[in-house]
Amino acid sequence: MDTKITLTEKEMPTAWYNIQADLPEPMPPLLHPGTKEPTRLPPPLFADELNTQEFSTERYIDIPEEIQEIYKLWRPTPLYRAYRLEKALDTPANIYYKYEGVSPAGSHKLNTATAQAYYNKKEGIKRLATETGAGQWGSALALGCQFFGLELKVYMVKISYEQKPYRRIMMETWGANCVASPSEDTEIGRKILKEDPECTGSLGMAISEAIEDAFSRDDTHYALGSVVNHVLLHQTVIGQEAMKQVEKADAYPDIIIGCIGGGSNFAGVYLPFVKDKISGKKPNLQIINVEPEACPTVTKGPYTWDYGDVAGMAPICLMNTLGHTFVPPPVHAGGLRYHGMAPIICHLHKLGFVEARAVYQIPTFEAAIQFARTEGIIPAPEPAHAIKVMIDEALKCKESGEKKNILLALSGHGHFDLGSYEKYLSGELEDYEYPKEKVEEALKHLPQVPA
Amino acid sequence: MDTKITLTEKEMPTAWYNIQADLPEPMPPLLHPGTKEPTRLPPPLFADELNTQEFSTERYIDIPEEIQEIYKLWRPTPLYRAYRLEKALDTPANIYYKYEGVSPAGSHKLNTATAQAYYNKKEGIKRLATETGAGQWGSALALGCQFFGLELKVYMVKISYEQKPYRRIMMETWGANCVASPSEDTEIGRKILKEDPECTGSLGMAISEAIEDAFSRDDTHYALGSVVNHVLLHQTVIGQEAMKQVEKADAYPDIIIGCIGGGSNFAGVYLPFVKDKISGKKPNLQIINVEPEACPTVTKGPYTWDYGDVAGMAPICLMNTLGHTFVPPPVHAGGLRYHGMAPIICHLHKLGFVEARAVYQIPTFEAAIQFARTEGIIPAPEPAHAIKVMIDEALKCKESGEKKNILLALSGHGHFDLGSYEKYLSGELEDYEYPKEKVEEALKHLPQVPA
Repeated sequence: MDTKITLTEKEMPTAWYNIQADLPEPMPPLLHPGTKEPTRLPPPLFADELNTQEFSTERYIDIPEEIQEIYKLWRPTPLYRAYRLEKALDTPANIYYKYEGVSPAGSHKLNTATAQAYYNKKEGIKRLATETGAGQWGSALALGCQFFGLELKVYMVKISYEQKPYRRIMMETWGANCVASPSEDTEIGRKILKEDPECTGSLGMAISEAIEDAFSRDDTHYALGSVVNHVLLHQTVIGQEAMKQVEKADAYPDIIIGCIGGGSNFAGVYLPFVKDKISGKKPNLQIINVEPEACPTVTKGPYTWDYGDVAGMAPICLMNTLGHTFVPPPVHAGGLRYHGMAPIICHLHKLGFVEARAVYQIPTFEAAIQFARTEGIIPAPEPAHAIKVMIDEALKCKESGEKKNILLALSGHGHFDLGSYEKYLSGELEDYEYPKEKVEEALKHLPQVPA
Repeated sequence: MDTKITLTEKEMPTAWYNIQADLPEPMPPLLHPGTKEPTRLPPPLFADELNTQEFSTERYIDIPEEIQEIYKLWRPTPLYRAYRLEKALDTPANIYYKYEGVSPAGSHKLNTATAQAYYNKKEGIKRLATETGAGQWGSALALGCQFFGLELKVYMVKISYEQKPYRRIMMETWGANCVASPSEDTEIGRKILKEDPECTGSLGMAISEAIEDAFSRDDTHYALGSVVNHVLLHQTVIGQEAMKQVEKADAYPDIIIGCIGGGSNFAGVYLPFVKDKISGKKPNLQIINVEPEACPTVTKGPYTWDYGDVAGMAPICLMNTLGHTFVPPPVHAGGLRYHGMAPIICHLHKLGFVEARAVYQIPTFEAAIQFARTEGIIPAPEPAHAIKVMIDEALKCKESGEKKNILLALSGHGHFDLGSYEKYLSGELEDYEYPKEKVEEALKHLPQVPA
């Protein structure tokens, strides 16, 4: 059989799949951070169509042709059969991975970046503002905005801005304006710098700057790279393609495994499959959300109301959370260092349709190296967490003799994360226990929400 | 029509195409650097099968199944139609590009690295030694060796080793041992370091160390990433795929454009097409080899006998050369800084089947940015030279109204070359004139070859 199960461009999905149409219990509302009343996403920050998608219960939402045309620059993405890894593990399991690293930005993020740029452009917006940590989201949005002639201002956490110049240059190559956050360009940035000129920044600060920027200009909106419903919706192109691919391979998965930070890549892969579990068609389908032991939101965090952002300016949502003031240890998977989790994932977790597992960073890199040496692709540290669990599951199959189909969500390559590989290879990589006391402290600061 | 013209794995070529079967005049011999008599590649350094391929006149050489299986990890590679660039240029030309950056090593180099590792393994060799400049070849061979369980020692030019740590880490991730050259691991390295402990190295020194390493151990062979016939042979998988793809698109090219450093990627693309020009089937096919103005081997160098390497240890070949002692200015396209050129390309150039053009570095990066902002992919600086000429040709079509089919060889992505993009974007990129006097000096040191 083929190593890659591919689709033609004609087989690409023409609509996004909306899980909200098939949930046995509807999604809880978002609450306004001030009034604590149910709210939309703040209209001065988001295009109307994105706000509509956020709460829609239509099962399918058409993908505009302009977006489909751009998706064809990298989609449909390949589904690989991991023959060489299976052989190295000597497992009877059939391992498949859906690889989003073929996008020019190197990850799944471009699927929603393109859609968000499109809808904002269509509604007359000239400019977007966003934040980025390690730069994965900022670079994807830079290209998304370039496709539609939108300006982009990216507030990049200063320590990353200095340590990861390549991601910044990528954004500039695609025409975005990227500044180190805290910056002199916003009131909040200037205030922080006045108090601490040496401040190296945080994702929370960068979010605050980007939101202030978008609020302060009529021609500017804000853009989010994960967590919210409309972002997960856009990522369902991945899972719909994967569904067709496993059908071609006659290999409907027994287990689907992916990493979750905000959750958009993995939800994008499994939402079209979880439908089959909800409907009872595939009752035994196992879906494993993998997170770092250092930031174990779903495995250890309570399911409760919390702010989406560190500053407490974003809507409050019902989700698993480690507390919005919690700052996780500096694991190398920057994309998995978020205190909360996509409400859709938490809702499915609470209803029992998906499970979660936490892994340590060092065995994660060990798994990543084994993957790179057999399959060739060097994975980003984020999906390497899922690779660790995937290898564990494949080895369980070896013990039990079960020939399970395992589907892995491989969200992107690690070309800009090789510094972390060097730390691992030189034996300098540290690991981090679950920071229980810090979480307990952070959980004291949850918002008070009326029953 | 589709944005990507794709092939299935079943449509992949099962044999390499050997141009030596179809040349109107046979290739001139290689000469021994000492005796100046016709010679094979030095047998202690190369697998027998590779040496046989070097001089074969069989039209097709079967690709062993083990190699085909590995090729499927990234092949067949896509042929893109550059709709968005065409629109930006407002050209009637139809632009296609064959993209090798989807390989895990990021370029075409893995096509031959895999084959060389295979044949060496098959002949009982346990270990390879090679040199690398910026790291493109070293990293491809690291993965190639990993696929077949061979050890690899890479001598990486010290200045690159220090300035481009990511390529080194990539090699280590794939299991290779990479040292800065000059190193303490060889006699020649120790000698150089004794004379100049601060020496930053050169490709010539690194080649000398790798060759000494391979000569000094029975279990070790040497491996070359470009220039020689068997490397070009392996790269013809690219052109054979492209031929099928342009047939599917009904778009046989009027012009084929690619960059040449050693020449293996571009020859790999055009050799299956040049056959049609030699046979008279496509007399008007135009094939443009693009090189940097700073190192214009084919456009300015005489067609004469010269050593393949800087040290004068390698066989002497008949080729265009700027003199084996010539050190080109430090243009960012490290892969195009070679004094000579693949003898097959030079032979075809002398016979009038292909032409050459030199371009400057700054307009090259300007073209690369336009490509990145329309097509998404950030090209490596090497193929950016070809993009510059491709845009020039597309604009000529705009003036003349001709609807030509243009095929571009896009050899790899620029993820590890973003430092050069930053220089361009910040206005700090220098350009270099053709160093006429240095070349004239170097040409005084050509080997004396009896008529």
